[in-house]
Amino acid sequence: MTNKKRPEWVPDDASDSFTTEIIEGKKVKDDKHQENTRKFVKRKQRSTDEFVKGILSGDRTILAQAITLVESNAKRHEEEAQKVLNKILHHSGKSIRIGITGVPGAGKSTFIETFGTYLCEQGHRVAVLAVDPSSSVSGGSILGDKTRMESLARNRNAFIRPSPSGGTLGGVNRKTRETMLLCEAAGFDIILIETIGVGQSEIVVRSMVDIFLLLVLTGAGDELQGMKKGVMELADALLVNKADGDNKQKAKVACGEYNRILHYLQPSTKGWQSKAYTVSSLYQEGIDEIWKVILRFVEMTKTSGVFDERRNLQTKDWIYTMIKDHLVRSFFSNPTIKTSLPLLENKVVTGELSVTTAVKELISLYEKKL
Amino acid sequence: MTNKKRPEWVPDDASDSFTTEIIEGKKVKDDKHQENTRKFVKRKQRSTDEFVKGILSGDRTILAQAITLVESNAKRHEEEAQKVLNKILHHSGKSIRIGITGVPGAGKSTFIETFGTYLCEQGHRVAVLAVDPSSSVSGGSILGDKTRMESLARNRNAFIRPSPSGGTLGGVNRKTRETMLLCEAAGFDIILIETIGVGQSEIVVRSMVDIFLLLVLTGAGDELQGMKKGVMELADALLVNKADGDNKQKAKVACGEYNRILHYLQPSTKGWQSKAYTVSSLYQEGIDEIWKVILRFVEMTKTSGVFDERRNLQTKDWIYTMIKDHLVRSFFSNPTIKTSLPLLENKVVTGELSVTTAVKELISLYEKKL
Repeated sequence: MTNKKRPEWVPDDASDSFTTEIIEGKKVKDDKHQENTRKFVKRKQRSTDEFVKGILSGDRTILAQAITLVESNAKRHEEEAQKVLNKILHHSGKSIRIGITGVPGAGKSTFIETFGTYLCEQGHRVAVLAVDPSSSVSGGSILGDKTRMESLARNRNAFIRPSPSGGTLGGVNRKTRETMLLCEAAGFDIILIETIGVGQSEIVVRSMVDIFLLLVLTGAGDELQGMKKGVMELADALLVNKADGDNKQKAKVACGEYNRILHYLQPSTKGWQSKAYTVSSLYQEGIDEIWKVILRFVEMTKTSGVFDERRNLQTKDWIYTMIKDHLVRSFFSNPTIKTSLPLLENKVVTGELSVTTAVKELISLYEKKL
Repeated sequence: MTNKKRPEWVPDDASDSFTTEIIEGKKVKDDKHQENTRKFVKRKQRSTDEFVKGILSGDRTILAQAITLVESNAKRHEEEAQKVLNKILHHSGKSIRIGITGVPGAGKSTFIETFGTYLCEQGHRVAVLAVDPSSSVSGGSILGDKTRMESLARNRNAFIRPSPSGGTLGGVNRKTRETMLLCEAAGFDIILIETIGVGQSEIVVRSMVDIFLLLVLTGAGDELQGMKKGVMELADALLVNKADGDNKQKAKVACGEYNRILHYLQPSTKGWQSKAYTVSSLYQEGIDEIWKVILRFVEMTKTSGVFDERRNLQTKDWIYTMIKDHLVRSFFSNPTIKTSLPLLENKVVTGELSVTTAVKELISLYEKKL
């Protein structure tokens, strides 16, 4: 994308896909420069109401553009995105939000392709999103990649959106949550959020979904060793994937082992005993059972009140997280702090200054400059 | 203590022990009121230099008073405490800092009594501190209690200080760290910091010690079930306590089980394989071995550089933690925020306002009032 010319009104920090979509959406040709410019200007001025109407009517192009708005770091886009969000909010929240994680190689894409297609066949509309902290390093997203879910990507009832690239995990967090709300308002009743076992991403995804699935492979012991600590405790169901062919028996054994371990862990959801299941994404085996488990989970938690309780708590936690992130970010990005911190830090490490004194000095510097 | 009359210069928010110590230290009698008042006034005016000199000469009474200063929440005491701290800093840091945790009933007090006495016999000077988050709820400290370590408490080479009561975990954190520095400056070359498996306290203690010991009992499986997730990963050594009498064989079996589990966990310290050991605090068995393990650990980490690296990192982390705590606390204790937060939170939960909009509003309110 970097070689393509961006229209001048696209800010430098807008995501590349913003340009791509508009160019592709309108089938822009190079010899129609005049007309293009006119169209860009027009698109640029799409009103809040146009966005809202488009989203609520399920227009995929407008939905994609609204998500791009949400993903943009430009202040102007951010403001417009918030206007749109505030108008579609009470149309959101009506989906089942499902988180899916697993180590690389556990077969997340294949599972989502199979499971998503199954759900579409059942008459559902499925949105696939991704939280990928590694994309901020590599610059490219490795999750939610349409080319890895070819048949699902072609399904009229599915909508696949790769992880927003770049930015902090906090930023990705906000973007994914808001994208989820837009998708819900556009009528998607199942949201699948994929993530990889890196850093804090599972915790972030757990904090925005109703039910959390962990994909694993056979060989519980060996794999547990490589698995990030604490991930199993987050899962409402463990899926032993690739339970097919020669692997079928091994998968069943692993499933039993995992169930024994799960027995010792605190349940991720109050009143729900997390269990392990075997599944073959390749041969579509066990998919139906997983869906029934999810439906049972939703029914149980809605009856007990845990479902709504968790959603409210998630919303409040999100407010606190955003506030904390903001406070910490504005402190540490303050130019005075940036200069003084290393100097004072050094004085503390060498024993010239107590930590409390150094912290007091930094805070008083900060509050003076604010 | 609440029935005893406090001298008027003692602020209402000073810890009770402040008064106790001074009264006990001077053997104050009720019929010497005049003289007492004079002495209190005199004590009140102890200069920074007197504190520093007293601490560096190992004067236990002055050390205890300096710790009380550090524990006080009164602004005046805080300032004086920082003056003292800044002058003794380069005399601190020369001890081995050992963290000890374990579920209630694991025998932490008995172990510390036996281990501490052993260390004193070896010519060391041992300070016992405690981080007890529950004391802020119960108002009384259950750790570092002198009555539970009677013989160690009478030892001239030991100094036992109960957990500061009241306040947040962040406050207890600061007070314990600063107390540790004072003890080091007073010549204590071994610091034992006791904590209980509640909330975040193990993580707090791990972040201020060189080596972290986890006390457990026999019956690995059952106990693991009750053990807080992630605690085992923090430990540099696991001590299966009460390995005596009928329990000896069971303790050996449990030790083997724990070693198998430890094998699967990431080591708490780079280059060090955490292992399980049996110990009998009652019959002083295995104590010598534990001390050798600690010495090996210190030698290994000092040679590899991990020891100093960790200490520097701990200091820097402490700076960040204190800053973050301050920023978050001043935000949420702001009167405008206290009024507006529940209202805006409610608007978000009912779908009237997006989280981002609510957060922006709160932050702009806060920054206007600052």
